[in-house]
Amino acid sequence: MSDARESVRQEDAPLRVVVWNENVHESRGDEIVNRNYPEGIHGAVAAGLRETLGDDVDVSTAVLTDPEHGLSEQRLAETDVLLWWGHVAHDQVSDDVVDRVVAHVQAGMGLIVLHSGHYSKVFTRLLGTTCSLRWRNDGERELVWTIAPTHPIAEGVPSPIVIPEQEMYGEYFDIPTPDELVFLSTFTGGEVFRSGVTYRRGLGKLFYFSPGDQEYPVYHHPDIKRVIANGVRWARPTGPRRQLTADQHPLGWFEGGASGV
Amino acid sequence: MSDARESVRQEDAPLRVVVWNENVHESRGDEIVNRNYPEGIHGAVAAGLRETLGDDVDVSTAVLTDPEHGLSEQRLAETDVLLWWGHVAHDQVSDDVVDRVVAHVQAGMGLIVLHSGHYSKVFTRLLGTTCSLRWRNDGERELVWTIAPTHPIAEGVPSPIVIPEQEMYGEYFDIPTPDELVFLSTFTGGEVFRSGVTYRRGLGKLFYFSPGDQEYPVYHHPDIKRVIANGVRWARPTGPRRQLTADQHPLGWFEGGASGV
Amino acid sequence: MSDARESVRQEDAPLRVVVWNENVHESRGDEIVNRNYPEGIHGAVAAGLRETLGDDVDVSTAVLTDPEHGLSEQRLAETDVLLWWGHVAHDQVSDDVVDRVVAHVQAGMGLIVLHSGHYSKVFTRLLGTTCSLRWRNDGERELVWTIAPTHPIAEGVPSPIVIPEQEMYGEYFDIPTPDELVFLSTFTGGEVFRSGVTYRRGLGKLFYFSPGDQEYPVYHHPDIKRVIANGVRWARPTGPRRQLTADQHPLGWFEGGASGV
Amino acid sequence: MSDARESVRQEDAPLRVVVWNENVHESRGDEIVNRNYPEGIHGAVAAGLRETLGDDVDVSTAVLTDPEHGLSEQRLAETDVLLWWGHVAHDQVSDDVVDRVVAHVQAGMGLIVLHSGHYSKVFTRLLGTTCSLRWRNDGERELVWTIAPTHPIAEGVPSPIVIPEQEMYGEYFDIPTPDELVFLSTFTGGEVFRSGVTYRRGLGKLFYFSPGDQEYPVYHHPDIKRVIANGVRWARPTGPRRQLTADQHPLGWFEGGASGV
Repeated sequence: MSDARESVRQEDAPLRVVVWNENVHESRGDEIVNRNYPEGIHGAVAAGLRETLGDDVDVSTAVLTDPEHGLSEQRLAETDVLLWWGHVAHDQVSDDVVDRVVAHVQAGMGLIVLHSGHYSKVFTRLLGTTCSLRWRNDGERELVWTIAPTHPIAEGVPSPIVIPEQEMYGEYFDIPTPDELVFLSTFTGGEVFRSGVTYRRGLGKLFYFSPGDQEYPVYHHPDIKRVIANGVRWARPTGPRRQLTADQHPLGWFEGGASGV
Repeated sequence: MSDARESVRQEDAPLRVVVWNENVHESRGDEIVNRNYPEGIHGAVAAGLRETLGDDVDVSTAVLTDPEHGLSEQRLAETDVLLWWGHVAHDQVSDDVVDRVVAHVQAGMGLIVLHSGHYSKVFTRLLGTTCSLRWRNDGERELVWTIAPTHPIAEGVPSPIVIPEQEMYGEYFDIPTPDELVFLSTFTGGEVFRSGVTYRRGLGKLFYFSPGDQEYPVYHHPDIKRVIANGVRWARPTGPRRQLTADQHPLGWFEGGASGV
Repeated sequence: MSDARESVRQEDAPLRVVVWNENVHESRGDEIVNRNYPEGIHGAVAAGLRETLGDDVDVSTAVLTDPEHGLSEQRLAETDVLLWWGHVAHDQVSDDVVDRVVAHVQAGMGLIVLHSGHYSKVFTRLLGTTCSLRWRNDGERELVWTIAPTHPIAEGVPSPIVIPEQEMYGEYFDIPTPDELVFLSTFTGGEVFRSGVTYRRGLGKLFYFSPGDQEYPVYHHPDIKRVIANGVRWARPTGPRRQLTADQHPLGWFEGGASGV
Repeated sequence: MSDARESVRQEDAPLRVVVWNENVHESRGDEIVNRNYPEGIHGAVAAGLRETLGDDVDVSTAVLTDPEHGLSEQRLAETDVLLWWGHVAHDQVSDDVVDRVVAHVQAGMGLIVLHSGHYSKVFTRLLGTTCSLRWRNDGERELVWTIAPTHPIAEGVPSPIVIPEQEMYGEYFDIPTPDELVFLSTFTGGEVFRSGVTYRRGLGKLFYFSPGDQEYPVYHHPDIKRVIANGVRWARPTGPRRQLTADQHPLGWFEGGASGV
């Protein structure tokens, strides 16, 4: 990592947020997706963040076809929280960029992974599991129940959030035991899903949130916008970006004073 | 994965255990290592398992210089629990073999990672963090305290286990929050380390245990042998090896009957 | 606690299991309950355990109207795992007996709390929360999904278990974050519930399992019988019963040898 | 609980903090305690909070000999975060007051339990374990290591915090698995202790922090003051105080709209 890592925002500066989207459904002209998301899924998510968080955020977007997928070392060094949406093009994301994103998360960048991003290289690399699940696309009602009522990510939304039509994601969801289980979803068919879960990886905070699909206008739902905005605030870095390394301790160090983490 | 995965042991058959060691210190003739471990670290760990578990285990060893590092698809398919020791040659382990080991763990194979194996590709891939730590090699006394008194891995050992001379490993240890914190170690210098931790990854169980070093005869310590044997028993698979995948659920399936995980 | 605590079973002796039931619905002649459970709920649960575990268990029952509710110090000292069913008479359970049960759990006795036992004094005392929940008795279908596929309590049951008619229990369930989340249930109405959760309290293991109600024949369901039997095996003590106390450490103790937990 | 519960602070109003101390060592004239804490332990803790948090807090104190121990229903209803210090007089705290404090924590009041408060009725009731531990009073050096580097409670303190002289608290500490393990302490004698742990109980947040003793001037240590102040901010309520109860769900409710937790 370059010294660019040191360019950390001031406490009162807006959070620098990047919404990444593979943007394949949109650019190849899938009708229903274009109808739901005329500005792209990234455009809708970014608009929701700007609407909810206002001047507290500085939101930009990046897509697969940008140079380096829009995620250069410089760009990541200046990003506080990255959001990730992908579906059909996970294997087109370069391993170099994945390594870079993973390193930035471990060094303190926040990460929000949305919906089908469960199968992205970034997410499976950070979690260490297959992240497989069950699914069925039949326009079912999803109910998103709050299981952690005092968690900041659940602030200001009803329990349940009612999403009239959705793709079903169901257990068994092959993830590590979450640090925090914030939301559980049920579907008309009777399935259940751990739909809002958090993890820490190094100095970075991760939030996975499953509601959201290209075929349904879920990212326009006011409660969903609120949850994603809450997630961005929750996942913000708590200090300067810093790569953790194995350090040799001096002998007798504790006589001479304390050191950092 | 091949069908070889289906070759699962009978309930009453011995556990098939493979102790993997990079075997570099030993084969290049590091004097102190050869003195401590004339049969290699893998030889000492394997002997400890045979001594402690007797007919309940069928233990073999594998090293870096074996073809495919001794970890072919066939060999892994017939392994219930794999132990991993590495130090100076982590980057010589082929990515193909790492992918294979990771897939087998996720599909149900048990994994015990020892000491400096914290920095192995296999461990960092399954955990998603850097696994960095602090260290000092000064022959300090390590005390290994039991924090989970009813955990099967802590069965039959005193709290603390006293290791007269050891390399120090200290916090901050960059790992995800463990599923279970079994042991905490302290050192003469005052440092502390989460020295025994467990994780689940898919259908596989992982146990990391830090005591053990090439320069100290730790693997001959009776309590350490016991912990490693307990770990092997704890990490054994609970069912046939099986790769988890994303499955489509049929409509109305719950009318017609139940399905597997 | 008396010395009776020391009467611990031999490794190969049957597990000594007591099924406790307030037995109020049954003894006051609630028709539907008597029809579902002619031998009482305790009788049905005990029969399920004997059928599933055979000679591995020695099962007896106890009810509210027994002297000391059937839970004398002597009886508890000779109990490996206690099961608890209560509903309308929680406040009739004497505080002395509650203190005694809590102390035995903390000292190593296993405890399985069933269904409306969530509101029992024993459970709320061990958990430290209100254990409140939402409910609706409308004969809905309950689906019990396995979230921890390698957990021994989930062994041998399909995911989901289908219970045709049940009382609904729904979130928010006011419990501490479980040590392990084994099952999640959904209901026809769309609610979700953490229906199978485990905790450790001192040297004792707890399993709460919500399926089961006096108005539905749930305890005759083969999968439910299996889960409860799995729970009993899982919750068995790992050593002699022992009351944990605050102990003064001698100076320089670690020179002279190791001590117990 | 009375309607007084509804008197919740405005978002920008100071946090209302009460420091409770049994105040027995001080009032009976224990010399070393009076020397270390001329204003009482509660006075020192309160002064540290005022110094660190300034206008963000409104700090008052209460002691055992106050009417209702200074913890009337009205007082608790107007308290955002309660700190608890007790040692020799745990059993003199009335059960009615304990019930009241527990109910307020479960309904959203924050609670910080300090040092020997581990054995208080309030803490053991909320945790459900004996909270026993090992101890030795020999003026040892305590090192407080940060294990959760991004946790707000660890903000702004070195790792380790060095306390030159302290009473030793050691494992096994009989507590439930913490929601978050923030600090681990080591002592000259080689013991280890989970010295900073958090829990949620209902809508309330708990932080236990072990450094601090009547015989050593620990509460004047700048890093300890900072940790306690961080704890107070972390434990503040996230909404109006509210008693959780078991609620019946209406049939078909999800058609008509959403409800609260």
